[in-house]
Amino acid sequence: MATNRAIHLVRRPEQMPVEDDFALVETAVPEPEDGEVLVRNVYLSLDPYMRTRMTGIEAQGAPYPPPYPLNEPMRGGAVGRVEASRHPQFAVGDWVSSRLGWREYFTSGGRGLLPVDAEAASPSSYLGVLGMTGLTAYVGMLDVGKVKEGETVFVSAAAGAVGMAAGQIARTQGCRVVGSAGSEEKVRFLLDELGFDAAFNYRDGDIEGALEAACPDGLDVYFDNVGGEHLQAAIGQLSAWGRVAICGMISQHREPKPGPNNLQLMTSKRITMQGFVVGDYLDRTEAFMRDVQGWLADGRMRNRETIVEGIEHAPSAFLGLWDGDNIGKLIVRVGPES
Amino acid sequence: MATNRAIHLVRRPEQMPVEDDFALVETAVPEPEDGEVLVRNVYLSLDPYMRTRMTGIEAQGAPYPPPYPLNEPMRGGAVGRVEASRHPQFAVGDWVSSRLGWREYFTSGGRGLLPVDAEAASPSSYLGVLGMTGLTAYVGMLDVGKVKEGETVFVSAAAGAVGMAAGQIARTQGCRVVGSAGSEEKVRFLLDELGFDAAFNYRDGDIEGALEAACPDGLDVYFDNVGGEHLQAAIGQLSAWGRVAICGMISQHREPKPGPNNLQLMTSKRITMQGFVVGDYLDRTEAFMRDVQGWLADGRMRNRETIVEGIEHAPSAFLGLWDGDNIGKLIVRVGPES
Repeated sequence: MATNRAIHLVRRPEQMPVEDDFALVETAVPEPEDGEVLVRNVYLSLDPYMRTRMTGIEAQGAPYPPPYPLNEPMRGGAVGRVEASRHPQFAVGDWVSSRLGWREYFTSGGRGLLPVDAEAASPSSYLGVLGMTGLTAYVGMLDVGKVKEGETVFVSAAAGAVGMAAGQIARTQGCRVVGSAGSEEKVRFLLDELGFDAAFNYRDGDIEGALEAACPDGLDVYFDNVGGEHLQAAIGQLSAWGRVAICGMISQHREPKPGPNNLQLMTSKRITMQGFVVGDYLDRTEAFMRDVQGWLADGRMRNRETIVEGIEHAPSAFLGLWDGDNIGKLIVRVGPES
Repeated sequence: MATNRAIHLVRRPEQMPVEDDFALVETAVPEPEDGEVLVRNVYLSLDPYMRTRMTGIEAQGAPYPPPYPLNEPMRGGAVGRVEASRHPQFAVGDWVSSRLGWREYFTSGGRGLLPVDAEAASPSSYLGVLGMTGLTAYVGMLDVGKVKEGETVFVSAAAGAVGMAAGQIARTQGCRVVGSAGSEEKVRFLLDELGFDAAFNYRDGDIEGALEAACPDGLDVYFDNVGGEHLQAAIGQLSAWGRVAICGMISQHREPKPGPNNLQLMTSKRITMQGFVVGDYLDRTEAFMRDVQGWLADGRMRNRETIVEGIEHAPSAFLGLWDGDNIGKLIVRVGPES
């Protein structure tokens, strides 16, 4: 009997997850019943927001999805193929996406399974630039940041999955785009491969000086993935009526640090800062798919992934997100495409 | 010849103003030329924003009014009476408001002079609850905070000029209103005279605990006059889709302190924080005057002033704003009403 490996959440982290919060669990591959399909996952999505759903910390009092259940497979986006079907709408070999996460196989009655067009784009891209990651960047930049042609936009963690999409989307709108990243290699990637107008390595230390040098005429929109010093530097550099779209603050995950000491500038500069959650913008999915598929097709956007092989490495790869190990979207390949 | 006393700005403060930044200067009372009036100021407005215009600090890079000129009278709102008129539209005895500030007498060709209806309300109230102070509270609460009936609203420095108006305006909208203030006397004023639903003394130390106790079911709008710990406590207590209207951050004036360590909650809670400057909302003046005059007339709003006698005391009274010496609007009486 074939083995079905999954990574369970076995302990709820208080602040930062560690390897011992996860366990590899083997069961038998389930048999689909009548009306069900058996899906074999090929790619898993690893994202910083998963920490919030593991701990439940930041979601307290907010209409955020509930914490992940313990002793079940880690949830999250995945794409895979139908391995066996007793469901009229799915055929063997179909590519599908789901939100059931870190497991090799699962059966489904079809609810929550979405078809994936593997002809239009690579299957894994539906976890990243064409998935929730891309939609997050799209609504954060257009609906929250409200970027306009000719504006200057700053994206932190710009070589990460969301940042990479956010910066490129701003460029499609005719914006001048500045990015920060955590290595020289990532900075080169932003400049040479994604066409950012300016980029700097935030580990060089002087974020404020680097940002000022990169946008001497000011800044209109800051897409914040980081918080902390990045946010303080951005507020200092923002022009009047500047906007901050707060997507996440990865620098604040390990421990809450003091915030920007210059929020009082928000008054004279009429700055708006807005936190957002992609789940509130699902009605934008159709426009997003149309736009981003178009921009990928005509070369105005590029995709980039860091692929880790083997479900057993999902926990360590996931923890590496906080060390900036990945360039672009971090994905685990669970098995072969075919 | 009569003496015209004025308080000049003689030195630009770097951070906080001190008495030596001001000087009392005596000149002759000017004679109005043809087409001019001579105004004798009766009341002067003292406001924290004046510090920004003295230093120019927070206004850098923002479309904020320019720093006050040196060696001229301190600018700012004033109301007075026409003492002599060679202008067809003004008669001796008319009440007028101006923005020319801390001087006993001035001549004017009429530009910038606004008539004051001393029958409808006390002349000094046109500097406070019916002046820029009141308009700040009105647009901050309605246009920026967007308060709705049934919501819970928190106002810091609620016994100050803007806070007192803001809290009462929220009550007219059917909101539950919580205020913080810096003394027991002010807390009693909020509860007993203004009808706040809850109030606490922030000098007792535990702002977070006091706010949580005052709004256990969460907070929808925070009207921020203070920044710092107040802002951090408010972010912690805000409900989903909560708003923060940033009017000013008086706690940050003496020295910039680290900001809230919990801004990452803005994402899961979808919080919007917006800084605003009243000058952008002058088109709301008519609605503001109609509404607030109505609320004062039917008793839903009350006015309160702290009046300091004598233009020579304007500098020390102004500096006392940062020690919370005043309850309600701080005004200097320069001379008798008639």
